[in-house]
Amino acid sequence: MSVKLVVIGGGSSYTPEIIEGVIRRFDSLPITEISLVDIEEGKDKLIVIANLAKRMIEKSGKTIQLSWTLDRRQALKNADFVSTQIRVGGLNAREKDERIPLKHGFIGQETNGAGGIMKAFRTIPILLELAEDVHEICPNAWIINFTNPAGIVTEALLKHSAHKKVIGVCNIPFNMIHSTAEILNADPSQVKIEFVGMNHFVFGQRVFVDGINRTDEVLTSLARENLDYSPANIVSLGWSKGFINSMKLLPNPYHQYYYQTTDILSKDKEALKEHGTRAEIVKNLEKSLFTIYSNKDLNVKPKELEERGGAFYSDVACSLIDSIYNNKEDIQTVNTFNDGAIAELPNDSVIEANCLITKNGPKPIAIGSLPAQVKGDILQMKSFEELVILASISGDYNQAYQAFIANPLIKDERKVKSLLDELLCAHKECLPQFNKGGKGNE
Amino acid sequence: MSVKLVVIGGGSSYTPEIIEGVIRRFDSLPITEISLVDIEEGKDKLIVIANLAKRMIEKSGKTIQLSWTLDRRQALKNADFVSTQIRVGGLNAREKDERIPLKHGFIGQETNGAGGIMKAFRTIPILLELAEDVHEICPNAWIINFTNPAGIVTEALLKHSAHKKVIGVCNIPFNMIHSTAEILNADPSQVKIEFVGMNHFVFGQRVFVDGINRTDEVLTSLARENLDYSPANIVSLGWSKGFINSMKLLPNPYHQYYYQTTDILSKDKEALKEHGTRAEIVKNLEKSLFTIYSNKDLNVKPKELEERGGAFYSDVACSLIDSIYNNKEDIQTVNTFNDGAIAELPNDSVIEANCLITKNGPKPIAIGSLPAQVKGDILQMKSFEELVILASISGDYNQAYQAFIANPLIKDERKVKSLLDELLCAHKECLPQFNKGGKGNE
Amino acid sequence: MSVKLVVIGGGSSYTPEIIEGVIRRFDSLPITEISLVDIEEGKDKLIVIANLAKRMIEKSGKTIQLSWTLDRRQALKNADFVSTQIRVGGLNAREKDERIPLKHGFIGQETNGAGGIMKAFRTIPILLELAEDVHEICPNAWIINFTNPAGIVTEALLKHSAHKKVIGVCNIPFNMIHSTAEILNADPSQVKIEFVGMNHFVFGQRVFVDGINRTDEVLTSLARENLDYSPANIVSLGWSKGFINSMKLLPNPYHQYYYQTTDILSKDKEALKEHGTRAEIVKNLEKSLFTIYSNKDLNVKPKELEERGGAFYSDVACSLIDSIYNNKEDIQTVNTFNDGAIAELPNDSVIEANCLITKNGPKPIAIGSLPAQVKGDILQMKSFEELVILASISGDYNQAYQAFIANPLIKDERKVKSLLDELLCAHKECLPQFNKGGKGNE
Amino acid sequence: MSVKLVVIGGGSSYTPEIIEGVIRRFDSLPITEISLVDIEEGKDKLIVIANLAKRMIEKSGKTIQLSWTLDRRQALKNADFVSTQIRVGGLNAREKDERIPLKHGFIGQETNGAGGIMKAFRTIPILLELAEDVHEICPNAWIINFTNPAGIVTEALLKHSAHKKVIGVCNIPFNMIHSTAEILNADPSQVKIEFVGMNHFVFGQRVFVDGINRTDEVLTSLARENLDYSPANIVSLGWSKGFINSMKLLPNPYHQYYYQTTDILSKDKEALKEHGTRAEIVKNLEKSLFTIYSNKDLNVKPKELEERGGAFYSDVACSLIDSIYNNKEDIQTVNTFNDGAIAELPNDSVIEANCLITKNGPKPIAIGSLPAQVKGDILQMKSFEELVILASISGDYNQAYQAFIANPLIKDERKVKSLLDELLCAHKECLPQFNKGGKGNE
Repeated sequence: MSVKLVVIGGGSSYTPEIIEGVIRRFDSLPITEISLVDIEEGKDKLIVIANLAKRMIEKSGKTIQLSWTLDRRQALKNADFVSTQIRVGGLNAREKDERIPLKHGFIGQETNGAGGIMKAFRTIPILLELAEDVHEICPNAWIINFTNPAGIVTEALLKHSAHKKVIGVCNIPFNMIHSTAEILNADPSQVKIEFVGMNHFVFGQRVFVDGINRTDEVLTSLARENLDYSPANIVSLGWSKGFINSMKLLPNPYHQYYYQTTDILSKDKEALKEHGTRAEIVKNLEKSLFTIYSNKDLNVKPKELEERGGAFYSDVACSLIDSIYNNKEDIQTVNTFNDGAIAELPNDSVIEANCLITKNGPKPIAIGSLPAQVKGDILQMKSFEELVILASISGDYNQAYQAFIANPLIKDERKVKSLLDELLCAHKECLPQFNKGGKGNE
Repeated sequence: MSVKLVVIGGGSSYTPEIIEGVIRRFDSLPITEISLVDIEEGKDKLIVIANLAKRMIEKSGKTIQLSWTLDRRQALKNADFVSTQIRVGGLNAREKDERIPLKHGFIGQETNGAGGIMKAFRTIPILLELAEDVHEICPNAWIINFTNPAGIVTEALLKHSAHKKVIGVCNIPFNMIHSTAEILNADPSQVKIEFVGMNHFVFGQRVFVDGINRTDEVLTSLARENLDYSPANIVSLGWSKGFINSMKLLPNPYHQYYYQTTDILSKDKEALKEHGTRAEIVKNLEKSLFTIYSNKDLNVKPKELEERGGAFYSDVACSLIDSIYNNKEDIQTVNTFNDGAIAELPNDSVIEANCLITKNGPKPIAIGSLPAQVKGDILQMKSFEELVILASISGDYNQAYQAFIANPLIKDERKVKSLLDELLCAHKECLPQFNKGGKGNE
Repeated sequence: MSVKLVVIGGGSSYTPEIIEGVIRRFDSLPITEISLVDIEEGKDKLIVIANLAKRMIEKSGKTIQLSWTLDRRQALKNADFVSTQIRVGGLNAREKDERIPLKHGFIGQETNGAGGIMKAFRTIPILLELAEDVHEICPNAWIINFTNPAGIVTEALLKHSAHKKVIGVCNIPFNMIHSTAEILNADPSQVKIEFVGMNHFVFGQRVFVDGINRTDEVLTSLARENLDYSPANIVSLGWSKGFINSMKLLPNPYHQYYYQTTDILSKDKEALKEHGTRAEIVKNLEKSLFTIYSNKDLNVKPKELEERGGAFYSDVACSLIDSIYNNKEDIQTVNTFNDGAIAELPNDSVIEANCLITKNGPKPIAIGSLPAQVKGDILQMKSFEELVILASISGDYNQAYQAFIANPLIKDERKVKSLLDELLCAHKECLPQFNKGGKGNE
Repeated sequence: MSVKLVVIGGGSSYTPEIIEGVIRRFDSLPITEISLVDIEEGKDKLIVIANLAKRMIEKSGKTIQLSWTLDRRQALKNADFVSTQIRVGGLNAREKDERIPLKHGFIGQETNGAGGIMKAFRTIPILLELAEDVHEICPNAWIINFTNPAGIVTEALLKHSAHKKVIGVCNIPFNMIHSTAEILNADPSQVKIEFVGMNHFVFGQRVFVDGINRTDEVLTSLARENLDYSPANIVSLGWSKGFINSMKLLPNPYHQYYYQTTDILSKDKEALKEHGTRAEIVKNLEKSLFTIYSNKDLNVKPKELEERGGAFYSDVACSLIDSIYNNKEDIQTVNTFNDGAIAELPNDSVIEANCLITKNGPKPIAIGSLPAQVKGDILQMKSFEELVILASISGDYNQAYQAFIANPLIKDERKVKSLLDELLCAHKECLPQFNKGGKGNE
């Protein structure tokens, strides 16, 4: 048996993590062919990555054919799995997403608030094209999407492309399990969290270690220690005791944007002054990562990669591919159709849920009703996401406006127009759908 | 035929409006007995009102027996309709609801945000007691609730008392119809607005004049003229063109708290400095109203009453009673069980909807799906309301905390505890359910 | 103001009832132009009807222009209302629907069981074409469908044509109100029945006379007197006391097919032997009706028409047109989108419900949950109807098979194939969708 | 670690299968204490079983303490698992359930139609008492119910007792997997069927062998070979090709009652004449089984047990206990709360579904929408089940009547009364809830 993996956005600095994951699992998951794909602008980085990947493979002694190309459709031939990790507009676009909202008095973040909406607007049309290519060229291939906002993008693909074999992954559930394991002094493999919600808005309802409910210990610990289980790109302020005691849920690190908005906004404004945007920091991180990657003696994934917020993303993806290929019937937390799992959401909503993973993809474990204390917030976010997807595809100015109004981090109707107009203008080149015809912004 | 009306909170300054409404409709709606009920603290005002009411009735020449009493259960005997217009804790409590949140940086308003929650906490247990009395003493009587937050209170009564003949009314739909009629140069009786949502969070979807859809004209007008169709207690900033153009819905005046939060907060802080709270203004209004009411020559409802935000509330209630008594089968906008009218809400949610009014009470006209652009906001508010009701009844500190977190005007978990604790303490005497046992705040 | 009505199937023997209804309402509903449309095969009858109609109009002295044509698209120009009363395949097709199922041991009925399915198969494609014509030629016109199975046909049009102004009507609710009024010795205009369900499967939940609940009296009467409130085409066996006492609902005459299947089957087999099919009886009725109609001295609707099962159908339609045209905001029982009215059904299910009738069409009064005792039966019938519609449009043999299996009057998988195959063959000419390609019956 | 199992109905002839299952799993599932409980009337059989069980345990060499008792509450102390396999009224009651309906012209079957309803009426009150005892005495114990009608009984317990740790099991999914494995020449452990529906009304949607979809092969085989995968108590007629080809689902053996009603009825009437009821056959089987069991040399489960329809039931239960105890996180098909898994059913409906089994019990894998071709039938059966549960608890004659009407195998309102009355009378002693007060039948 042999398996072919195509990595869209192969020039990403995260790619070595995938390569490492593939090598490590080679005996059970025989990925014998990897094609790294990127666009013209990313060619130099793509070559650096491809060379590092080749050295890693060579060191491993596994018989894996690795190639790179700028011809996506060529690469897709005979693919079994297609992973997507692209950044439309690059870090420059991210910088705008972070800087412009802050200027208008709003959270500026890559996957939340106005920034997250713009990222969705730029990304969804590109990935819909990819999905159509996949459907035509390798219709049995699974798309493993880890491009953010991963939940929204996955829902857009599942709803609006003909290709229905799409799964979204994120490292947040992985991180929450690992941090919780640390709190409980347990091995992560023993820890199960009952997740409920959507990507970047997921809560933990109950924590089990080997089937024993230990939720209360985790909540106590969260409330006591201002425990921080955030990825590298999020600096947490910790959660107040009263909040944790009353909510009785494990928040995820991104919840700070919604439940600590004022303080986070102040902190982010401060940080902007001192260090610039996260995009700028990441640019430097990337630069030094690629310097490291270029070292011809390097033949392993360097430690420095873990400083990025997306660490373990690729590992999560490799585990998923493994379970699909081997029909493992294990439980992993991924983004897929709700199919009734959360009673209050339609079947075709994409949720982040514990799923049974088989050769036929993921199926969520039934959750039932949303917890009353966050039911409204989850339904509102999902409704917001639906508006983002509609606007991403239609390029309709009024729908974009509605998405901004529906976002709990924006909402303020007296400030939306200038914010939206500036963002649409700043990202003009990456948003052809908003610039067709001469409709203009209004 | 003869009908008995019991007015709970009969000493309210709004009562003359009810009296006027009853007199005006006497020929078709023979309310021959009115009992004004109030509590000991309100006895003086109750007597002033009762005397004015008697003079009004005398002038009218109608054979209406009017009496006042502090004995509620006595008054309820043989009642056909029971209207409720009480203010637990009086204007002093309202002042706290307005002042304390502002101090903490939040909107301080009587029926929205923290103030609205506290009003619900104070009111719901009292009205549940009333409903049980009604159910025992006059089980066929309809309770017409116009005590705020009217939607939440009505849902609490319908869900948690044995008495199921409860209808909530508000003057907002009435005002919106009248303002819209003015915009369209039409008679209010010709204008129909398709409402969707809940009390104080209701939107207009479409406007018809004699069945002709004239929504666009109203929207254009709203966007152009910063048109203000707010009641006296709300100063509107007007709505931006972009907002109205993209939302394509008629907001209600209270929506400014949710979609213009920052500006309203600034304005309210400013207003507090200059004029004190709205409660204090109303105290003065009340004082001069009661001076006017005491004038023994006065035998009509004085014009000055219309300066209050609740004007027309009682007129709305009288129309409703008329349609029930006469099985009119007309359409009025009231608060009642959803019963499927909005597909996304449970049957036992209370919505503010256009209803067919018969002798058997109101039944909503089916609405179908919520408009996508506000679906999330409506679902979130409804979910918040459910938490408020639970906490109102249980007196559970954590549920109160959840309700605060769930409110889109509060949400900020780092500030909730001090806000909630100060409010619970300030209103201690009116919140026995939160002070049973020694559980304390936490 | 002037209104144009187009009658599709104008050669129907029921048309004089429409003409009478139009004349009677002329002062408030100025239908000044009527176009009777039929197909070539029906030309002779069409001319007879048109001539009678002209005499009726002349006698009335109203200024109504009446014309007939075989050119449907021409007739639709400037139409305001389009009524549909067609019988694809004529009474010969009906005869097959009645005779063939009986031969196989199943109920043979025009609108229920196998016969009803075949009628839907024949009718839906034709009326979908009409709806597309209407949408193109007179997009503001309302289609008033009284072609059976009226509920299924209306759902097919509303779901599968671009034209959304379609309302289905039936005389069953009208008949139930009139019979109930008789039981209660009341005027039909005072009687309201809360209907729940679908066309030909609708139940009465509660009966009100001037708003007073008198359901129990009606149920007692139904149980006692074997009361028969069936139209002319249905001979009722009466309902047993135990059934009425336990169900506490008013069945409609068609429910006998579902709840008295064995006895009705025996009776129908007997009747077939003695009198032939209902179709054959109707053929004779029609013959004598047309003889009467041809009498040049006749200038009114003859009494004899009321012997047909569809009597009052047209009157129901005229009332509906009147309320739409005059924006009456009254309550009529019609077939339209559920839009949440019944909580267990999707928004786009067509139900037969009490609706508010305005210029913008009907909107159901919210019903809430289905009554537990018939919830399952109603959901099953609705699900069956969905399968019929799918098969009507696709012409897919397996979907037709599924519809047969799903019908509670058929269900028997060991007999379906021969029944279905014989019916598809017998109606071959009217079912082009099942005969495209060479797929054949399997 | 040690585990205590209590077997309610320990005198059942199926008990040796449980004992065998416990012994076989002893190394991973240390059930060290088994208490067999029965009622006075079953004492003799209980002792025979207990003695056989002891010999089986002795032979196995495992350290399992086995005891028997008539004192249920005593036995429940410290229980970890409580299995229920009772037959209220014994085989005599079953005989009536089978014979009386046939006499009235209806299917007479133990778990379907009128017989199934009566079994539910007799069983539910008894098991609700048990559940309350469990909740009081051993609140952490899981009740594993295999008393039929297992789905209805499980829903009754989960909805109407305080004890929420109840799981229903059945051997039908097990049998379907085994038969399918045979068809596909695969090992049952490799075969997964996606089940949808309720106990005894469950369908297979798709069949996977090691994750490969092989549904079509199974369907082809079912249609071709009249393949019979029924348990011993059901003689199958096979399914017609047309049915399988159009439905594209795997029926379960009980579906013959619903989709082949006439033929099964004829066959059963014939069989009754020739062999008497199944109850009578089983009585003889039981007799000879107990003769075999009494043999003091017997120390294994005898082969003859497999001739009973319930074979493998206990094995299914032991596997379930094993997975719970060991937190196996594997997939088993059991009866539990829907919790959204089937979008059309409420959260608290009990469905038979593929579930993830953990120490915290089962959670269904999300299914999404019901297959269109059986959606109506499934919803109707579920609605029927709800009526049965209500009547079982209330003992209300009219609710019982409604349940009979709602059952697709009865439905005929003109025959219900005599059938229901005769059954209620025949089972009088086992139906105290229907005989309280003097309400009488009507």
